[in-house]
Formats: sequence, structure tokens, C-alpha cells
Amino acid sequence: MSSPGSLQDLRVADLGERALIERIRARVPPRPPHLIVGIGDDAAVAAGERGGLQVLTTDALVEGVHFDRRFSSAADIGYKALAVNVSDVAAMGGAPRLALVSLMLPEHLSLRDLDALFDGLLAMAAECGVAVAGGNLTRSPGPLIVDVTAVGSVRPRKILTRSGGRAGDALYVTGQIGAAAAGLGWLRAQPEGPVRPDGGPSVARPDDPGLAACVARHCRPEPRVRIGTLLGRNRAASACMDLSDGLADAVTQLAAAGGTGAKIDASLLPLHPGARAWFTAAGREPLAEALAGGDDYELLFAVPRRRRGRLRLVAREARGVSITCIGELTNEPAVVLAGDDGPTALPAGFTHF
Amino acid sequence: MSSPGSLQDLRVADLGERALIERIRARVPPRPPHLIVGIGDDAAVAAGERGGLQVLTTDALVEGVHFDRRFSSAADIGYKALAVNVSDVAAMGGAPRLALVSLMLPEHLSLRDLDALFDGLLAMAAECGVAVAGGNLTRSPGPLIVDVTAVGSVRPRKILTRSGGRAGDALYVTGQIGAAAAGLGWLRAQPEGPVRPDGGPSVARPDDPGLAACVARHCRPEPRVRIGTLLGRNRAASACMDLSDGLADAVTQLAAAGGTGAKIDASLLPLHPGARAWFTAAGREPLAEALAGGDDYELLFAVPRRRRGRLRLVAREARGVSITCIGELTNEPAVVLAGDDGPTALPAGFTHF
Repeated sequence: MSSPGSLQDLRVADLGERALIERIRARVPPRPPHLIVGIGDDAAVAAGERGGLQVLTTDALVEGVHFDRRFSSAADIGYKALAVNVSDVAAMGGAPRLALVSLMLPEHLSLRDLDALFDGLLAMAAECGVAVAGGNLTRSPGPLIVDVTAVGSVRPRKILTRSGGRAGDALYVTGQIGAAAAGLGWLRAQPEGPVRPDGGPSVARPDDPGLAACVARHCRPEPRVRIGTLLGRNRAASACMDLSDGLADAVTQLAAAGGTGAKIDASLLPLHPGARAWFTAAGREPLAEALAGGDDYELLFAVPRRRRGRLRLVAREARGVSITCIGELTNEPAVVLAGDDGPTALPAGFTHF
Repeated sequence: MSSPGSLQDLRVADLGERALIERIRARVPPRPPHLIVGIGDDAAVAAGERGGLQVLTTDALVEGVHFDRRFSSAADIGYKALAVNVSDVAAMGGAPRLALVSLMLPEHLSLRDLDALFDGLLAMAAECGVAVAGGNLTRSPGPLIVDVTAVGSVRPRKILTRSGGRAGDALYVTGQIGAAAAGLGWLRAQPEGPVRPDGGPSVARPDDPGLAACVARHCRPEPRVRIGTLLGRNRAASACMDLSDGLADAVTQLAAAGGTGAKIDASLLPLHPGARAWFTAAGREPLAEALAGGDDYELLFAVPRRRRGRLRLVAREARGVSITCIGELTNEPAVVLAGDDGPTALPAGFTHF
């Protein structure tokens, strides 16, 4: 059931703050038992998991920096804003439980877009068992910003930090890399379509299924919650982080945090086939693009030799998401990529400044 | 010890993201024992207080909406960004423990301002026992934004919601009202001074001590943490909220949440003397301005008749902050102000849209 078009076409500035909060609250599912006070008071109150520690992270999506309204629908933006936070919780071995949503809204934003943004965010919330506990709403004199804080739970001694890796540990990555960068590259190469009256993205999705998967990865990344919590619970991994800024950046950081170097085998890297095809067609080097491209939100983790049996148990429960060995942590402090032309230094990842 | 001027004059865009995070991390005090993983990993990990519930809130300060760089220093902005969140935790009866700081930085922001912003935030953190557990850093294509999430702890059954008030409960407010609105009014009435080379506010503070107190209240509000936690612990209050959007708004919301009306006695309202003087001199009605003006961050709370003895214990421990009875919750659903001219409807408060 949708509201009458005339109401949806209103801008957020036409409603009062209280009416906007009520509109959001009406979309949020009933609160779970562990959420004692939800939206509408000075703060939310929640019961922690018995014996669990709190995992806390915050990450913002800023219009013009992290997304482009020509490429992403309002629902995509809401979905991704929660997904990138959930990915950080999963990368610590945590199970996501709650989120706070801080919205900075340009006055011209339509109620239709606000509704869609929240519906996208709530779709991600439902997928990973997160309750929206509260948030904040304010006017933005510039870009649309969705800043989310996610709170999860992890058992003591099951925490996956970045710093636990040791020389000799094998490095693994979930899923495939390069898809989000290829999807964004494809979107940027399209001629701009007409502005849509419903506020949706003006660039249509590609017909080619490989490319469509890449665009979907850019717009709606899939946080690896199940694998992250499994890796934490059975203590297969010695260190873990997510690929928000690309694999090259992640390997460099994981090695630095543990005081090791790393060697990645170029021939083992699980490049997304759609990404490989698109980068090749665009005259760009697929491997370098996939290593440097951000937004994949796969997990990179290290596994000590003696715990490979535990990793097999995780892989069996991974529901179709591949887990690929791509190299190892080394005593040598350098971070190198071993390829056909011998070892080279790993290129840098995405940076926000 | 300050860094060389040449480095401080750099803009945030001149440093990489990693260098900025390191710069912030170097300013943050050593983590307390309950913070198990702090700044620098995918997420923070913290131990909850044994037997305590989590109190979670988020609130953003947006340049051009909530602050004006001509009036507030970068340190003021950092201080206030945490203070307004801590105030929300206190209004639930919670003791603040952790904060996540999400910064959206214009490229032209100087390192000097970034340092000052964090030092202001850390000064507030030290005052109220909060550890900065993590955060996020990104570029802003428009305004400077400081979005903070605060996490506190509260015992079950000691939570102060907005909805517990009943007809007959007396209404109290901490401190004095109208100061922040008067301070902002004064600042806005000043001719703009020259831009300062150190990036500080171009409007100087007033010489008059009453006005100076009002300006200080606008720039650096004092969250009532001690009184909030005391009210929660000894269960003196049946309902509580903070005055972020003004007293009139707070009374209206507290009454609505509890399903009551309210009657406020105009002669009892604790107007800040500096605010009264300034509004009078400016030809404005002090009472109306103080009721409608936001940003005071005092607490409004309801106390059942039988618990007034407990309130006296709180008042004794309030360290010089006054607690004033201003009226009561009523069976009649209206929210009225009783003054010399008889009862009138309470005017509305500040709204962000």
C-alpha cells in the first residue's frame, strides 16, 4: 500500500520534525525484546547479550563522496548505509543487533525518497537481524548524509581484531573482488539519462548479467555476517578485517597491525568475472583495478596452519560464498604481489582524502 | 606544546586519511579497562557494566544549522557535539561511558581546527568520564559536521523515560532557562569582526558577565549528568527529558508521552538573569523567549508527591545546580501557562525543519 502521490511528492521541509519522526517510526517493525526503549525518547535502552561484549562502529554515506543519486536509488543508499556498518561488526566476529540512524536531509528531499531510504535500510536490517533503536534527524544545507552506528555482540576471546596475524598464517578472502569498482566504473561511463519524476536513478541498470551483478555490488553490498560470526565463534581466524577500501589496502593494514609482511599470489585472486570482462573491455588492467577498488565489503582474514580444519567447518556453513586462499603473512616486512613478472609492491587502496 | 605553525596551517586535504586518524588517536587518552578495542580497528569492543543496560543516542551538529563558525570556535563545536549527546544519556538516568565520533570535514578545514575540535570534545569527555571508542572520518562537500553517538549504562528499573509522568506529579527544571537563546541572540546582533588568522570566532565574547554566561551556555552547554544519574538511581522522578528544543517543547512532549496535560506557573520559571536583561533591552518578551529558546540542555522531570523526600536527597548532592518546581502534570489534557493574565496555551519550541 502506498500513500497518495500528492503526499509522497511533498518535500521533507513541508513536514515538521515530529511528523517526520512519526513517519519513520511507523515503518520500523515492532521492537525485539532486547530493545527496551526504542525510537521516540531521549535515547534508546537495550539489554546486552548475557556474557557478551559490545561491538560498536559508525560509518557515514555522504552524497557526492560515497554515492551519486544518478546511480543509486534512495532505497540503495539506505540499504548500503547499514550494510557497510554491519560489515564492520562482522569483521570483528560480532553479531549485529542494533542500529542508530542519523539523517541529514536537504530540504528539497521528497517524502517518497525518505520513505524509500528507510525501506532500503530496513530491508538490510531484516536480512541481518538488526533493530533500528533510534537516531537523529536534521536539516542539511548541502548533501544528503546517512550516518549509521551499528552495535553488535561478541563473546570475550572470540573477537577478531586486525592485529592477531602471525608470519606463516595463510590469508583468505571471501567471495570475489573488483565487482563494486567495475560497477561504479560502468555507471560513470554511461551517458546521463533524463531525470526521473519518481526521483529514481537516471542511469538504468545494465542488461548484461555479469555487469548487472557488478552494479548491484556497488549499490547494495552484501556484508559477510555469517562468515564473520562463524570465524569468530570457532576461532579459525587469527585476524580479520573487511575490504571497505579495497584488498590492497586491507592486506597492507592487516600486515602492519600484526607486525608482519604479506605475500599475495596474483594467480589466486578471485576476480569477479563480470569485473574482469568490463575492465578488459575498458582497456584497464583488471588485477590492478580489483586490488585498488573499494566497496567490495568482502572479508580478509588470516588462519594459522593448525586451524585450517576449523576453517573447513566455516566454509561448509558459508552458504555458497566462496573462501579463497590468496597468500600468507610473512616475516619479511614488505607487502608484495607475486605475479608472472616476479614480486612487485602492492598498490594502494582507496582513500577518503 | 603546540606543533609548528606551518603544520597546523595545513588543510585536512593535505594529509592522508590514515595520517588524520593517527593524529586524532595521539590526542585521545589511554583507553579505560572496559574499552577492550579502541580506535583503529573495524569496530570498537567494550564490556558493558555488569547488570547494566545500554543507553544509546546520536545527535549531529551541522555547520549552518546548529553552529556558526563566526560565533563558535572549533573547540566549542567539539565540546558541544559531545555535550548534547551526554545530555540525552543523562536524561534517561544513564551514566555516559563511551562515544563514537563521526566527522565530515570540508577539505579547507585546517589541521589547527581539527586538533582544536578534538581537544574540545576530549575536554567534555574528561568532564563526564567518557572514552572515545572510535569513529569515522570522511570528506564533506559542504558543511562541517560532527555526528556523535554516546553510549551509557543504566540499571534496569532505574530508566527515566519520558512517558512515566502521571497527573499530580510536580514538574521540576534544573538550572536556569533562556541563557542559550539570549547568548545566540546577542551573537547574531553583533557586527561581524575581521576573519581571524587562527580560525577562531570572528565575534568576540561580551564583557558583561551575565551576557558572557549566556554566550558560554550557547557555545558550551553543561549536560546535567550528575542530577540525571541521581534521579534515576534513587527513583525520585517518574519521567525525565532534556531541554534541547526548549522548555515549552519539553513540557508538551513529557505531558503527551505520559497521556497527561500540564500547567506551568509563569512566576516560578527560573529565567537566567543575564537572559532576562538582554531580552528586555532588545525589546523582546523574556518569558516567551526563554520558553521557546532551545539549547539550554537543562533537565525537565516529574516527581510524584510521595517521592519528594527522595528529590531533596538529589538536590543536596546537586553541587550548586538549582532545582525549581515550575508546575505540575494535570488530568486536563491541555498544556497551559498560568500567568498574570490567566492561563494561556504554551508556545511551541524549536524545530529542525
